[in-house]
Amino acid sequence: MSEEGIDLVLPALRPLDENVRLQAQARLDSLTKPVGSLGRLEEVAARYCAMTGHVSAPRLDPVVFTLAADHGVTAEEVSAYPQSVTAQMVKNFVHGGAAVNVLARHAEASLRLVDMGVAEDLGSCAGLLDHKIACGTNNFLRGPAMSRKHALESIQVGMDLAKSACAEEKNLIAVGEMGIGNTTASAAVVSVLTGQSVEKVTGRGTGVDDQTLKRKISVVEQALELHHPSSSDAIEVLTKVGGFEIGGMAGLMLGAAACHVPVVLDGFITGASALLAVTLAPRCRDYLIASHLSREPGHRIVLDHLGLEPLLDLRMRLGEGTGACLAVTLIHAALKVYREMATFEEARVSGALPQS
Amino acid sequence: MSEEGIDLVLPALRPLDENVRLQAQARLDSLTKPVGSLGRLEEVAARYCAMTGHVSAPRLDPVVFTLAADHGVTAEEVSAYPQSVTAQMVKNFVHGGAAVNVLARHAEASLRLVDMGVAEDLGSCAGLLDHKIACGTNNFLRGPAMSRKHALESIQVGMDLAKSACAEEKNLIAVGEMGIGNTTASAAVVSVLTGQSVEKVTGRGTGVDDQTLKRKISVVEQALELHHPSSSDAIEVLTKVGGFEIGGMAGLMLGAAACHVPVVLDGFITGASALLAVTLAPRCRDYLIASHLSREPGHRIVLDHLGLEPLLDLRMRLGEGTGACLAVTLIHAALKVYREMATFEEARVSGALPQS
Repeated sequence: MSEEGIDLVLPALRPLDENVRLQAQARLDSLTKPVGSLGRLEEVAARYCAMTGHVSAPRLDPVVFTLAADHGVTAEEVSAYPQSVTAQMVKNFVHGGAAVNVLARHAEASLRLVDMGVAEDLGSCAGLLDHKIACGTNNFLRGPAMSRKHALESIQVGMDLAKSACAEEKNLIAVGEMGIGNTTASAAVVSVLTGQSVEKVTGRGTGVDDQTLKRKISVVEQALELHHPSSSDAIEVLTKVGGFEIGGMAGLMLGAAACHVPVVLDGFITGASALLAVTLAPRCRDYLIASHLSREPGHRIVLDHLGLEPLLDLRMRLGEGTGACLAVTLIHAALKVYREMATFEEARVSGALPQS
Repeated sequence: MSEEGIDLVLPALRPLDENVRLQAQARLDSLTKPVGSLGRLEEVAARYCAMTGHVSAPRLDPVVFTLAADHGVTAEEVSAYPQSVTAQMVKNFVHGGAAVNVLARHAEASLRLVDMGVAEDLGSCAGLLDHKIACGTNNFLRGPAMSRKHALESIQVGMDLAKSACAEEKNLIAVGEMGIGNTTASAAVVSVLTGQSVEKVTGRGTGVDDQTLKRKISVVEQALELHHPSSSDAIEVLTKVGGFEIGGMAGLMLGAAACHVPVVLDGFITGASALLAVTLAPRCRDYLIASHLSREPGHRIVLDHLGLEPLLDLRMRLGEGTGACLAVTLIHAALKVYREMATFEEARVSGALPQS
């Protein structure tokens, strides 16, 4: 991708259709239930309509993208698991045994697995889309995580994946990731883009102990001191302290938003991608749905910064797209209610009485 | 039912099988994810196993019971809707147009509609189970809502419905209700059984205005002053200020727990039923799953009293079993994860590193 690649999608990012949202809410108000009594299901249905620009909500055909990549910063021993687990888990995804496989099936969503930069050569693995940019990022404590060219390429891959999915009439895109070390990279990205201290946005990831957490915080602090990425230049942030899957997911968000297709976020790492996407194109935010609140402490900070309220809080911290899948089941429910319930008139149910 | 009918179920209410819970957690810990990273999904799966007493979780075959009845206290103008809406909504349920129809289908649950005491004669309506005890309760501002005999009968109906469902191998029972005026009766029940003030546990129900809310609170206060039901006698509370669907749902909970089948609560009214069930048989509480937190302000008080944490908070306040249905989809997800994910050994994924 050239630097201009992103500029090309910006004009397609139209604001939400407020008129459609009002029409959708009017339909919700006509259904056989007290006005507003389905709470956030109604909000989701009306927002979905406003994003797509159509009052008639379609049957959902969702796709979950799980993007995998490795991180050079694992050399600093910031994770509870060895780097080799990224490739092992990708194989587990391919064989259908991971949590995201189970939950994507549950959400009636197709799952697309993408190698954005796993260290191991995975060969031509059936069921895995090969978009490997490099065999993992560089250790950002020693230099930039990647070249500016690779950062742009990772975003372009995501944008292209989103566009193909939208061309196939997928009408909801959920994002998730796998990459040992990626909460460390995400903490760096989130600290720069929200202006919050590293300590506040760095958590235990897969479950590191106190001493490893301390080291993880120190590694991120040192990296930000070394690189000083500019918070207004998302590509610079991605280049210096990001990851290939983090860039890829930002691209997915931009590409989906340009096609007016809603995007379901997952946890903390997808939140770092969302901050990058919104820095590149602020209007992208309107197409994002926050699925759940992760136990990773920086996630709340990310969602507050984005102005998004999560649908679920189940104390999950797995990633892969698992929280996004659960939210997809709620979005299914919201759109079914919208499409399938009878109106007061159809069901001959009396409306509210004059009161007091 | 005789007074002794309930005593007969008590011995069947065995405590949860802690050994099974530990075995279930050990399986969860062996799956390809960091320990505990699926948060409350893991808690639900382990608890489900402990309730049923089996380490091998089955494929869920859930049933939603929506119990309908009318309330004489509607004569005091405590609702935003006329009493006739109860029967109109029952017809809407029968025709499949209400929110609970849509969400039960979404949750892959069968829906059983029960007339526990709707004022209107609904005749022999296909798809509606006729267990009408009377044509609505009496106005409890003028006398007891029902006779002690009818209170016991309503509980027996629920117990029998649960037992038949369990005999058909339904392995999850969700409860819901419809009855104009039933948040007023529930507020009275909840105030007595939690010891909280009427003002704190009385909310807007279907959406009453400030003046109607004030009247509703005053009606409940007057009723409790008139009847002084004893908080240790659940049957007395049900008799004096309850409702037929409220008694029926308490019976469903007792019957399901006696069969070691988990019960999914819905909102505030099902919470009042749960308080009655737990007063009759404290161990029943172990078989209850709190689906969501309703916007009805007394609901939090009920759940705190029961020591249950809701899975969802979507600002819903519809009843019917709608919140319970959404939680059923999460329970499906939890048991699928438990059954279908690969273990670290099966997938040849490395475990956690020694840290620090």
